[in-house]
Amino acid sequence: MATVLNFYEAAVDELSDGLVDLPLYPYFEIAHYIVSVLALREEPGARVLSRTSPLTCWFSSMLNCFGGALLTAILLAQPPIQLFINSDDILLASVIWYLIFYSPLDGVYRFTAMLPIKVVLSVMKEVTRSKKILSGITLAKSKYQDNLPIMISIAWAKGAGGGLLSSFDQFVRGIWIPEKNELIRMSYATRITLIGAVLFSLKEIEYLPVEKNHLMLYYTIFTGINKCWMMTTRSAFTFSSVECFLFKLFFTGDFSCCTLARKFGIFKTDNDTSKGGRVNSPGVCRNKCPSPARGGRGNRRAREEAGSRNKKHK
Amino acid sequence: MATVLNFYEAAVDELSDGLVDLPLYPYFEIAHYIVSVLALREEPGARVLSRTSPLTCWFSSMLNCFGGALLTAILLAQPPIQLFINSDDILLASVIWYLIFYSPLDGVYRFTAMLPIKVVLSVMKEVTRSKKILSGITLAKSKYQDNLPIMISIAWAKGAGGGLLSSFDQFVRGIWIPEKNELIRMSYATRITLIGAVLFSLKEIEYLPVEKNHLMLYYTIFTGINKCWMMTTRSAFTFSSVECFLFKLFFTGDFSCCTLARKFGIFKTDNDTSKGGRVNSPGVCRNKCPSPARGGRGNRRAREEAGSRNKKHK
Amino acid sequence: MATVLNFYEAAVDELSDGLVDLPLYPYFEIAHYIVSVLALREEPGARVLSRTSPLTCWFSSMLNCFGGALLTAILLAQPPIQLFINSDDILLASVIWYLIFYSPLDGVYRFTAMLPIKVVLSVMKEVTRSKKILSGITLAKSKYQDNLPIMISIAWAKGAGGGLLSSFDQFVRGIWIPEKNELIRMSYATRITLIGAVLFSLKEIEYLPVEKNHLMLYYTIFTGINKCWMMTTRSAFTFSSVECFLFKLFFTGDFSCCTLARKFGIFKTDNDTSKGGRVNSPGVCRNKCPSPARGGRGNRRAREEAGSRNKKHK
Repeated sequence: MATVLNFYEAAVDELSDGLVDLPLYPYFEIAHYIVSVLALREEPGARVLSRTSPLTCWFSSMLNCFGGALLTAILLAQPPIQLFINSDDILLASVIWYLIFYSPLDGVYRFTAMLPIKVVLSVMKEVTRSKKILSGITLAKSKYQDNLPIMISIAWAKGAGGGLLSSFDQFVRGIWIPEKNELIRMSYATRITLIGAVLFSLKEIEYLPVEKNHLMLYYTIFTGINKCWMMTTRSAFTFSSVECFLFKLFFTGDFSCCTLARKFGIFKTDNDTSKGGRVNSPGVCRNKCPSPARGGRGNRRAREEAGSRNKKHK
Repeated sequence: MATVLNFYEAAVDELSDGLVDLPLYPYFEIAHYIVSVLALREEPGARVLSRTSPLTCWFSSMLNCFGGALLTAILLAQPPIQLFINSDDILLASVIWYLIFYSPLDGVYRFTAMLPIKVVLSVMKEVTRSKKILSGITLAKSKYQDNLPIMISIAWAKGAGGGLLSSFDQFVRGIWIPEKNELIRMSYATRITLIGAVLFSLKEIEYLPVEKNHLMLYYTIFTGINKCWMMTTRSAFTFSSVECFLFKLFFTGDFSCCTLARKFGIFKTDNDTSKGGRVNSPGVCRNKCPSPARGGRGNRRAREEAGSRNKKHK
Repeated sequence: MATVLNFYEAAVDELSDGLVDLPLYPYFEIAHYIVSVLALREEPGARVLSRTSPLTCWFSSMLNCFGGALLTAILLAQPPIQLFINSDDILLASVIWYLIFYSPLDGVYRFTAMLPIKVVLSVMKEVTRSKKILSGITLAKSKYQDNLPIMISIAWAKGAGGGLLSSFDQFVRGIWIPEKNELIRMSYATRITLIGAVLFSLKEIEYLPVEKNHLMLYYTIFTGINKCWMMTTRSAFTFSSVECFLFKLFFTGDFSCCTLARKFGIFKTDNDTSKGGRVNSPGVCRNKCPSPARGGRGNRRAREEAGSRNKKHK
């Protein structure tokens, strides 16, 4: 028994050390760029945009690939233009953008969008996410010592910048709807990154009794498996129960959020939108709690929008 | 007679010195946070938002409480994340946010929203406003010497940041209407802060023959009484006559602004909005001159929106 | 023959040296401010805005005059407030703003809007454009050495800042439509500045076999003549053929952009807009390729909007 435990411990040690030492450049970075550009490619209107305004399409792709670095730069008041200093990264991302949008017969897109390939790439992207969260915490610590909110913010920004900047990205692509934003209706990626940022920050100020490398390994494995499962089953590993428990514990002064959500939720909003211009304030309720974490950003939203458009044309 | 004047002078000196030395932390800061969060709580949709997305609600509250510091940081290209360095302030504001939105039986909200309590808190907030304007001028002077426009801008930003950032705040809460913004249609708080910033800046470059401490005392008393009066009578102490005089003097090349406003004003705009999507350009005229300074930001806007919604449903 | 060539060369040398040494302040700067404020004055709704909210109108004018400096400051994380340090420039621009919007009998506006005057001023503005592009490249080089994308970005930002910030400007004026932005649908000025920025940057890293001063001379003459021609004939010197050739070469994986544009283009969009609220994603196609460069920003857009409004009222 002791031998088995020892063996397990040694394996975890080795794996987590390997993960920490793993160089992101170039393979994991490439996977990150491909998955980011693929997500953009699958958004409604992106393909048309790529034909009518390649510059906008390129800029939007860069926002998706380097959103974390951009948001971090803004939060720390560093020049956004500094992103261009790593010419290699920009060049690599640009080549991938070009191949995915403009390759002959759409070959590169079709290849990378195949489920097995995409799953592998997405899992690789999850590895870059953990590493980015960790680098965000290191950066925050080097500037502002052990300040918990700053560590969480920077780590979150660095890990989920593309998501948090999605409103700006939508504005660039001319499809922005001011009634929605990532904070009100967080995507799965933004959510899981926030959880990671909180966990890693708590570890940093020694509130969690886990070794740092092990925590990173566990987090990466969890997000990897979760992503894998979500993509293959097209469902989501939700935190519904935990979220709803916490929610009820802290934020229900008088009545349940769930009831409220059911009352004002999806139905109202869709009606309002189809009627005419603007979503009324109850529209924010669309983000009902417990909300199922939404999986593939592109796919799902595309389907949703397609759905609502169909309704309109009826 | 001389004794009375001497007594008056001595009293003013003492009072103004006392006001300058008054520590804001914690009581006045608390009043500022309570009034800011209350204003948010009374906006349409805020309560629903607090149930569906507590994180967004918290972020919006922080924007209302620390908008001045944030806007100043942006104007001076300082890291916005530095706001988190004063953990105590953030923690205090967060506790107040939590109590006002989620206390059992809504007790804290009901207590603080009682008119006498609210009036006292609002007057205390006016004191923090004067102090913030002054600290803005000191900050601007320390960086850019006696530059009048910079002093006015920083003092205005610091004193009325929450108001000037209200578009961003509305965007965060998902109820943003791009056709409106604080510059076009200034609220009373933004307006009075601008006047204060101009007065204090003029004093700083020795254009006003008043002592600095006295000016601060007079300004604080004026804003305090004004606020008090506005809240109790639900009307507004307007600068209409002065504004309209200045306006006619400087900005009427060919015809009166008032006529124009009456022509394009409220009626057109409401019709346009109820018809469908967007307000035409004459819609900006809604901000008619002389516009009555609008009092309670939350209350009035809520009533307006309720009104326009009713019209739609007819 | 040799004498003629020599004479030509000497003339070019002298002219280009003269252009480089030409001081912008005050005459060319004044021309730039006048043309910028005129463009704003001719936008729909601007005149009404100047009567209802002079502060907003002034702020918008400053955005148009100093957009380049502002955008450069943002990209380099320098304090935006620093724009106010050059009090003279701000004062000059403010005086021009005041004269153009509020002069008795609209005299100044009528005088400067006369075609011959406007043409001269516009050509002078083109000179400031070249100089700004060059100063942007010098600035970028002093900070980030020979980094091509950074040089292009800063030069573009400095030369066409007002255009690139036009969404923000529209937001300030309360007429912002999130579906449009300058990147998707570049104006002629933004386009020609980008070309200039690319050319000058390529020269800077010695990819172009032209002398720097000569390049500047040629570019200035080209933009000047082009502008002159555009304003007098109300048509545009387009890059359609070159653009379409490059477009087809690089960005047409499977089918022609032109066909696509014709398919989704103008008709669809107008229908969608007139129906109700929001433009669907194909709406971005309005920017059809090869798009004719749009000349006078204000005039054309005004006419377009007037047109679409008429359609609505039918």
